[in-house]
Amino acid sequence: MMPGEKSPETIETERKTQAALEAYVAAWRDGDKDGLLRLFADDAVWYDPAGTPPWEGTARIGEFWDAAHAAGTTLTPEVRRIVVCGNEGMLVFRMCVRMADGSGMGLEVCDYMVVNEEGRIQNGKAFWDDSCVGALDS
Amino acid sequence: MMPGEKSPETIETERKTQAALEAYVAAWRDGDKDGLLRLFADDAVWYDPAGTPPWEGTARIGEFWDAAHAAGTTLTPEVRRIVVCGNEGMLVFRMCVRMADGSGMGLEVCDYMVVNEEGRIQNGKAFWDDSCVGALDS
Repeated sequence: MMPGEKSPETIETERKTQAALEAYVAAWRDGDKDGLLRLFADDAVWYDPAGTPPWEGTARIGEFWDAAHAAGTTLTPEVRRIVVCGNEGMLVFRMCVRMADGSGMGLEVCDYMVVNEEGRIQNGKAFWDDSCVGALDS
Repeated sequence: MMPGEKSPETIETERKTQAALEAYVAAWRDGDKDGLLRLFADDAVWYDPAGTPPWEGTARIGEFWDAAHAAGTTLTPEVRRIVVCGNEGMLVFRMCVRMADGSGMGLEVCDYMVVNEEGRIQNGKAFWDDSCVGALDS
């Protein structure tokens, strides 16, 4: 089941995938909307959660960011694992969502990401459902 | 960020996705190759790990199963989380791989699955890399 030796091309592709996912986490952590949008291809497609209508293009992904941060909500990712397989990656993390009134929740999420040749996120799908929602301090 | 009310169609789709993923886990747990292959569409495509050449069609997926079980190796999944988003699912689990000589490893895996209208797995990608390999008892 173990994959064989990786080609230099695969190693370079995986370096880009790893970098994109790490920068994605950092942008959420830092509340850096512009930095986040620069990580996506102009025509990127983002599903959050997967199975719902997508946010298509960086302008719409910016609207998603704004909706997530509405009313002073803060969102802090805690990475559990970054898995890199060629130009695809899986970001396993907990998103700590805190509302302005002090309430909040912890969301266990798997983000499935596809990274293009320029190292930008082309497609992303956030996997979470009701079973992934818990208390902030759980 | 919370999705709205789900339609009856979405609820039925998600029931099929959940059932397929649970049956997939059970087939691995029970060492049931035929049962596993019945869960896949005839023309299913399986990547393990993602980013490597796929196993296309159930005959080839059966060869993958045989390769994984070669030389008396046993593989026991321990589910951490099943996430269902429409006809897509994420199976987060640890695969305990035990060789006939008593050695082995624990592999932390995210399987990204797409389930068709018949409730069979149409596409699957197992996400794991070197960072996901640990000792059996870790």
